[in-house]
Amino acid sequence: MPRISTKGMAMPESPIRKLVPFAEAAEQEGRKVYYLNIGQPDIHTPQGALDAVKNAEIDTLAYSHSAGNESLRNGLAHYYRSHQIDVTTGDLLVTTGGSEALTFAFGSIMDAGDEIIIPEPFYANYNGFAIQTGVKVVPVEATIHNGFALPPIEDFEKHITDKTKAILICNPGNPTGYLYSEEELQQLAKLVLKYDLFLIADEVYREFVYDGVKHHSIMTLPDLEQHAIMIDSVSKRYSMCGARIGMLVSRNQNVMRTALKFAQARLSPPTYAQIATEGALDTPESYFTEVNDEYVKRRDILVDGLNSIDGVFCPKPQGAFYCVAQLPVDDADRFAQWLLQSFEHNNETVMIAPASGFYAKPSLGKRQARLAYVLNQESLQKCVELMRRALAEYPGGHI
Amino acid sequence: MPRISTKGMAMPESPIRKLVPFAEAAEQEGRKVYYLNIGQPDIHTPQGALDAVKNAEIDTLAYSHSAGNESLRNGLAHYYRSHQIDVTTGDLLVTTGGSEALTFAFGSIMDAGDEIIIPEPFYANYNGFAIQTGVKVVPVEATIHNGFALPPIEDFEKHITDKTKAILICNPGNPTGYLYSEEELQQLAKLVLKYDLFLIADEVYREFVYDGVKHHSIMTLPDLEQHAIMIDSVSKRYSMCGARIGMLVSRNQNVMRTALKFAQARLSPPTYAQIATEGALDTPESYFTEVNDEYVKRRDILVDGLNSIDGVFCPKPQGAFYCVAQLPVDDADRFAQWLLQSFEHNNETVMIAPASGFYAKPSLGKRQARLAYVLNQESLQKCVELMRRALAEYPGGHI
Repeated sequence: MPRISTKGMAMPESPIRKLVPFAEAAEQEGRKVYYLNIGQPDIHTPQGALDAVKNAEIDTLAYSHSAGNESLRNGLAHYYRSHQIDVTTGDLLVTTGGSEALTFAFGSIMDAGDEIIIPEPFYANYNGFAIQTGVKVVPVEATIHNGFALPPIEDFEKHITDKTKAILICNPGNPTGYLYSEEELQQLAKLVLKYDLFLIADEVYREFVYDGVKHHSIMTLPDLEQHAIMIDSVSKRYSMCGARIGMLVSRNQNVMRTALKFAQARLSPPTYAQIATEGALDTPESYFTEVNDEYVKRRDILVDGLNSIDGVFCPKPQGAFYCVAQLPVDDADRFAQWLLQSFEHNNETVMIAPASGFYAKPSLGKRQARLAYVLNQESLQKCVELMRRALAEYPGGHI
Repeated sequence: MPRISTKGMAMPESPIRKLVPFAEAAEQEGRKVYYLNIGQPDIHTPQGALDAVKNAEIDTLAYSHSAGNESLRNGLAHYYRSHQIDVTTGDLLVTTGGSEALTFAFGSIMDAGDEIIIPEPFYANYNGFAIQTGVKVVPVEATIHNGFALPPIEDFEKHITDKTKAILICNPGNPTGYLYSEEELQQLAKLVLKYDLFLIADEVYREFVYDGVKHHSIMTLPDLEQHAIMIDSVSKRYSMCGARIGMLVSRNQNVMRTALKFAQARLSPPTYAQIATEGALDTPESYFTEVNDEYVKRRDILVDGLNSIDGVFCPKPQGAFYCVAQLPVDDADRFAQWLLQSFEHNNETVMIAPASGFYAKPSLGKRQARLAYVLNQESLQKCVELMRRALAEYPGGHI
């Protein structure tokens, strides 16, 4: 039998996915499972996006331009400019989700053996994209004690080698919800300029910022024209995760020309999804205000609730719709599995994402879990109570 | 300024794309350009596919399963079984176009430095996928003189090294239109079993076979369960290139499990396109009969017409909707550019794809061009006459 690749064997399986069979079994036993483990919001997609597709007059569903339909790219450039991100149509490429934007960015700037520095915990699939492109992820530890703020810049600096090509951040962060300050971003900018590295920012949660705090895009930082690469997506912004439309944005034309060659090899991003996205661009500001008001309420219910449980510590994030909580257990993976296998209250339980999968050094996340506040307020209230009871009842190792 | 990757610099730019500015300039001057250079058919997408999307009731456009919606996978498995390809739902993965199926296949079975043998001329983007995954393409020359039949099996065998992991064919072929016989496939099967290699077949043109000849899928060959990987797509079959739905099909569960990890990293294939594809699966057989009748007429007009021109030789293919013609010119790239820059008859001209881009050794295709018969019969008749006049008038090097 011919062998699969070393790369294929190294591709990680997420700890969340390992739990899926237990969740399915729980459902089959008739237990209700509240899913706090995934970033699939229950928010409705804007009607303008859905209507654009319903009303599209199509005879032949043809390829689009490899960089995306020009009208869509123009619309996106306009969207960015209205968000103080001064880019033109030529500075952006429509991709099949933020995932593809990341693989194009990795492939365009890094060869096998090159290194990318990422503060951990980080979005688990960054590992997958790195393995696919042969790139080595070099983690720098952020800590729950200051809410996962940017690690000291010296910690980045001491990991820079002649193989280092880029620093990658997620802002606001998945899984932490942490929103980087302008000052933190300026520190990073100074560092990448000093060592002539790329700074990649995954800003797919840009719209989800709370408490009146402002999101700062790396595209607004001075002097970073040749160094900044922004990853974006409409998945969360318009609650259209299934569309699979993302964007690669950079003013570095070498990067854009190279990424376009990757884009041409796969022909075009999906047509229907581009139509939906163009429709979504007209979404009124009130949609985001309502959605953010809702997320703030949900966040407060979940985070305040978790912090009211004995032994739980959960920083309150100012962006995205995730939080990472430290739990009074010795192994969050085992606890998460126990929740699905053995726990119930009124025949209900919760699925959470053990944080080990978000760390390059899994042991750092051993006592932590990511919870996504993507369910309605009433459900989240129930989830808090379920977590309270579960942690009290849990027969495994406590700390 | 930070440097882009070696890989990025190596990504090829297709000779077709280099011609696009000349085609645009011709259009701006008011000349009509007949596009025979691309595989974007004018055939209508089945109404069932378009209606499925129009009628879909969606509130939140959510992620699907990473392997694709189960109902779609079941439907596809049923489609394959009705085409004598005996696979189950677990043997297939829905991808974002055939392109993604190829990158998943390459990534799952090959590491950087591994080799894949491909008969040339071949689909130019295979080069791009190979560069992205660090894989080396080893070409084996097929010849226009026998219509691009399978090269002698000894030619494959002598290129096998300890780095060789797979042989890739496209059947029926892009750019050649060549349809491999059952006997040729059996020769390849014997070879991959002897050396324990994977046999990848890109069968996206399966439905487009003519003259009563049957298509043989590698999935029907005995003893290849662990060795055969089929690449498929709905782009051409249902003329829905813009959907971006492809399939990776194999009974080798190690391959499928590994490919699923790649699929999970990018979350899900596009939702709308999956809905359209499920709608397309009910397309009546008459659609294909009509489409194929049309393609046979187009092929005959184009190929017979080309062969009636002094000095042109064009084998008549039995599949897909391409032909490769040898032209009485010393440089088909220059001729193709001249067609767009300097030629007109009644203010019309033709865009063709120089074949150099389809060869790993571009010189082999120096006198050849690929023409796609994706226009209607009347247009193709005009194209033949334009080619006849252009070749007579061409002031460049003739042979």
